[in-house]
Amino acid sequence: MNTKPARGMRDFLPGDVRRRQYVIGVIADVYQRYGFEPLETPAAENIETLMGKYGEEGDRLIFRILKRGEEGAQGQADLALRYDLTVPLARVVAEYRAALPKFFKRYQVQPVWRADRPQKGRFREFYQCDVDAIGSRSMVVEAELLGAACDVLTRLGFANFRIRLNHRKLLTFVLEQAGLSADRHETALVALDKLDKIGPDAVRAELTERGVSGDAAASLLGMFHAASARELLTRIAANEGAAELERVLALCRESPAEGRIDLDLSLARGLSYYTGTIFEIAVPDLAGSLGGGGRYDNLIGMFLGQDVPACGISLGLERILVVMGERNMFPTSLVATSADVMVTIWNADRTADAIRLAGELRAGGVRVDVYPEADKIGKQFKYASSRNVRYVAIVGDEEAARGEVALKNLATGDQVSLARGQVAAYVKQSP
Amino acid sequence: MNTKPARGMRDFLPGDVRRRQYVIGVIADVYQRYGFEPLETPAAENIETLMGKYGEEGDRLIFRILKRGEEGAQGQADLALRYDLTVPLARVVAEYRAALPKFFKRYQVQPVWRADRPQKGRFREFYQCDVDAIGSRSMVVEAELLGAACDVLTRLGFANFRIRLNHRKLLTFVLEQAGLSADRHETALVALDKLDKIGPDAVRAELTERGVSGDAAASLLGMFHAASARELLTRIAANEGAAELERVLALCRESPAEGRIDLDLSLARGLSYYTGTIFEIAVPDLAGSLGGGGRYDNLIGMFLGQDVPACGISLGLERILVVMGERNMFPTSLVATSADVMVTIWNADRTADAIRLAGELRAGGVRVDVYPEADKIGKQFKYASSRNVRYVAIVGDEEAARGEVALKNLATGDQVSLARGQVAAYVKQSP
Repeated sequence: MNTKPARGMRDFLPGDVRRRQYVIGVIADVYQRYGFEPLETPAAENIETLMGKYGEEGDRLIFRILKRGEEGAQGQADLALRYDLTVPLARVVAEYRAALPKFFKRYQVQPVWRADRPQKGRFREFYQCDVDAIGSRSMVVEAELLGAACDVLTRLGFANFRIRLNHRKLLTFVLEQAGLSADRHETALVALDKLDKIGPDAVRAELTERGVSGDAAASLLGMFHAASARELLTRIAANEGAAELERVLALCRESPAEGRIDLDLSLARGLSYYTGTIFEIAVPDLAGSLGGGGRYDNLIGMFLGQDVPACGISLGLERILVVMGERNMFPTSLVATSADVMVTIWNADRTADAIRLAGELRAGGVRVDVYPEADKIGKQFKYASSRNVRYVAIVGDEEAARGEVALKNLATGDQVSLARGQVAAYVKQSP
Repeated sequence: MNTKPARGMRDFLPGDVRRRQYVIGVIADVYQRYGFEPLETPAAENIETLMGKYGEEGDRLIFRILKRGEEGAQGQADLALRYDLTVPLARVVAEYRAALPKFFKRYQVQPVWRADRPQKGRFREFYQCDVDAIGSRSMVVEAELLGAACDVLTRLGFANFRIRLNHRKLLTFVLEQAGLSADRHETALVALDKLDKIGPDAVRAELTERGVSGDAAASLLGMFHAASARELLTRIAANEGAAELERVLALCRESPAEGRIDLDLSLARGLSYYTGTIFEIAVPDLAGSLGGGGRYDNLIGMFLGQDVPACGISLGLERILVVMGERNMFPTSLVATSADVMVTIWNADRTADAIRLAGELRAGGVRVDVYPEADKIGKQFKYASSRNVRYVAIVGDEEAARGEVALKNLATGDQVSLARGQVAAYVKQSP
């Protein structure tokens, strides 16, 4: 029988879960410190909630769930697995608008599913860590979001990450200046999004292939090539997007994002729902990004019938974990043991007493494993060593008579005899 | 556009998530103290991993996911949503046997999905909290599992819960004694499982309806009626199950399960994979159970081709949450605010300074929200009140000139002016 997890999905053994929980814990703690609150939505959504929100490519990658009951036999799907955390948020805001605060600030850390072709570092089930602020058009939102993301990455130990910043309205302006008609803008953004990955020649080829004239493509790429982002921004300073970017830059000077931001007027971001600022966070010597986001003032309106401003950042948990693993960034305390003490069973008659001792130590705040069988004591010790347990507790005949416990430190080999009531404190104090 | 979550599934707004995380946190903490380690498996499994493991009824309730690509159009399903946490555990043990410790003790807190008809307190997406010990036939395993479950419930504030304990081998013995042929045993157990819910007359009717003779049904129910569980156990003391139950009872006398266990020879548990001890935890004045489990020494063999002993308990998170809500068992600290301090924006020119102040307070360990817009200060105060924030920070012209911050306690109305560097410490010290 096949015992592998489904294609593109992963089992997380204890060490994996501990590393994941550590990173998620830091993310949640920082976001809470910024006043964001937790939200969770179901893994499955009604299929019409998701379809048509992610472009044609997205629709194709959505996992669909068969209808139950008789209709199911005909292959009809009425549910779909969550594809990202933004569309469910938009649905939630529309559904509970009256119960939510005017400025709803939520974070959400949950898995999403995409029927992508699995490849190195790309999975069909993966976690997103999203933080979004709903209800304000103020650039304070952008500054706070970017500050929080910088705090997260700094606390995780990332030192040299950079934020690329751009604005959809500036991109539109640039595309117009280059002579692209409005119906080519979305397709041009998808191509432009790859500029730093595939280079200008390949982008030019993709643009012309997708119906952009050679002149327009050359003109567009020339803009990013010729002028620095700053110069270009000055030239188009009358644009509303330029004013918002200046405001974000000014406010971020007072936040943890200070000195982290690079204006990059070629940054496009693939998703079609962005309407204002867009950003992407990356480490220079790492392909791809650690996260990204932007402002999407119209998406909630698709559910509510009335626009509500919104802006958010999504951090990619899987990529953060990969980089932290490769660079040994996890705290050594995570090289974890399952227990501080393993209680041995001296002989079958002493089994109940072993359970009692374990209970006493746990009540004292110690993590305790009990060897489950009255095996030879050497075998029990061997097992404790293989499990990386710090101490082994033994109550032999002599210790039992004296009301003591022998405690052996497996790292040093030292053994002490302690009164039963002192063991928990001893273990907790020892390094 | 429909903005409701899918049928039988739920959105968890911030207050809900906090309550859920509190309970999950207690469960994880206790299980870790018993030496259990965390495991996570994918939401979707290959469909053949799940089919045939839960009986006919179970197969029908499994959510099936459509194959992607061309075949998908024909309605073929190759994946299915996780139906419980036990079968994925069995798969994981078979797959990683060599990498896992001989005694693998894992806990797992994840959602499962069942296409049940939704009704009060029954959902199509719900969490299970499972703890299982793999690799030993010793009754130490049962004692530890029951002790841990009792510690969890006690720490959550449950006072009067009881554990019903039985053994599949005793049930088999009793069914044989009552004259039921082996091919009627499984169906009889399903009926018997409902004894405390629907009463003996209804169980008798169901038994005869399912092909058990009237004599056998009467004889079976008579056994539970006539004799106390203890008497019955004495009469059938030669059974291997009886010896194991005696052992569990003796070991539990030294664990937190002491005084909690009721021998109940009518407890059946619906699932077919149990082979030994079975148990169910309930609060007397509450219909249904808070959790249950048992020993299933053959399930892993279905994946591995070689039996590995196993035993576990599953706690029902949703029911625990419902009862705790109805009985006001959540700590008052969970009636949570999203922030300790809301920083106001005195006027548009001071926006950047508000962000800087928020950053200083956060660095000092305080949870801080920033009002995002330079609205009238009264409007900002009103918003802070509606959000249950403890303090509002104001830097007006005078405060700015003196390098101070005015801090208003929204509960008492008291206002103090503090040097900027003292605000974080003041907030953290105040009750």
